Amino acid sequence: MNREKHISSAFDRDLETIQAQVVRMGGMVEAAISDAAAALESRDEELAEEVRRRDKGIDALEAQINEESARLIALRAPTATDLRMVLAVMKIAASLERVGDYAKNMAKRTHVLSQLPAIEGAGMALRRMSSAVDKMLQDALDSYIRRDADLAEDVRQRDLEVDQMYNALFREFLTHMMEDPRNITPCMHLHFIAKNVERMGDHATAIAEQVIYLVTGELPDDARPKSNSVPADPVPAPEGEG
Amino acid sequence: MNREKHISSAFDRDLETIQAQVVRMGGMVEAAISDAAAALESRDEELAEEVRRRDKGIDALEAQINEESARLIALRAPTATDLRMVLAVMKIAASLERVGDYAKNMAKRTHVLSQLPAIEGAGMALRRMSSAVDKMLQDALDSYIRRDADLAEDVRQRDLEVDQMYNALFREFLTHMMEDPRNITPCMHLHFIAKNVERMGDHATAIAEQVIYLVTGELPDDARPKSNSVPADPVPAPEGEG
Repeated sequence: MNREKHISSAFDRDLETIQAQVVRMGGMVEAAISDAAAALESRDEELAEEVRRRDKGIDALEAQINEESARLIALRAPTATDLRMVLAVMKIAASLERVGDYAKNMAKRTHVLSQLPAIEGAGMALRRMSSAVDKMLQDALDSYIRRDADLAEDVRQRDLEVDQMYNALFREFLTHMMEDPRNITPCMHLHFIAKNVERMGDHATAIAEQVIYLVTGELPDDARPKSNSVPADPVPAPEGEG
Repeated sequence: MNREKHISSAFDRDLETIQAQVVRMGGMVEAAISDAAAALESRDEELAEEVRRRDKGIDALEAQINEESARLIALRAPTATDLRMVLAVMKIAASLERVGDYAKNMAKRTHVLSQLPAIEGAGMALRRMSSAVDKMLQDALDSYIRRDADLAEDVRQRDLEVDQMYNALFREFLTHMMEDPRNITPCMHLHFIAKNVERMGDHATAIAEQVIYLVTGELPDDARPKSNSVPADPVPAPEGEG
């Protein structure tokens, strides 16, 4: 970290308090992802319900982080560099809140999917994808605490793998749907979940990019290159179409 | 608006400048929605490309609003009520940015969909849904500028209609997919777009809720009741399944 020493460290102490809350929020979100994925795979509606319930705590923590950040700005009137750090905290909290929402969403679909024909291997594939994202998120927050731009860059690169997992699943779901119309409804839901997990990866990447910005003063040139990508290529051409 | 008169109005002037930027951002986002929907319906790839290009301007404006808001907080050290207003501006800008992203997303799929069999009526239905959301967004921003909690409440209510439009489309796409496997791929893309338009409605609602919070000091109890809803009921039971 290349910022000047403070004469007073009151700002630093306040910021560290807020950062600790962000780390706690990260832990809650990570638990939400893995529990939602586990609930989906084992059709455990109780666990899914718990993930939904816990999301309120995540939202409340974000609100608290926002309030305390605003208070910190108002109270200490930080200079440009410090101000940037407080804004980064708020952005990271916002990303975590979105990821928590996606996990809640996944949990919501567990009930519907439990009543539909199972798609072989889908639960496991989604859990594997979720755990890759989970690891990205952990490392993104680690890179934030340690102001480690290299680790943050590594997180960014791994987002490509998650995108590839998504594209492979998308292809697989299409195949299942074309094979048997009874698979269409469950695959629609599973596809949504896969897309949401891919979006979680985008948010972990956004956190990593904030870290790179904090450390180097610049956002990566091709910021979030894969965000919202459309799987144009992997779509099998519909039979009999020109 | 029930906040005390300021002795100095420097804060108000600064805030009004930022608000004007939010309104401008709103205009850009509204244009993005309607152009993206028009491009999709008429398979106009050039217009879609323009929507994608213009999204950078929307993102840049959000960054500017964030910076100026932060500077305003640092410079004027606003009290609780004023601080809340600045934070609301930032939240509204963040919602607009997300809506812009969804519009860009819709535009991205125009190219893929242009090469797939057309689904009758889908383009028109999506344009109608988009224009309902567009109107919600306009009214949400209007309610913000006029601090009109009634109009904001009206916007919230209209989100239910958008959710219904989405559920109807979801059912329709499922029917098309079950009728003919060649419809599966285009319907997957169209379904995504429909879901994204529904999410735009959620963001317009979030803006309306910020307005209610600013005016009344409280968020509506059942904040965002329809956000991320899973269409459990409207899913036709797969044939031959128990």
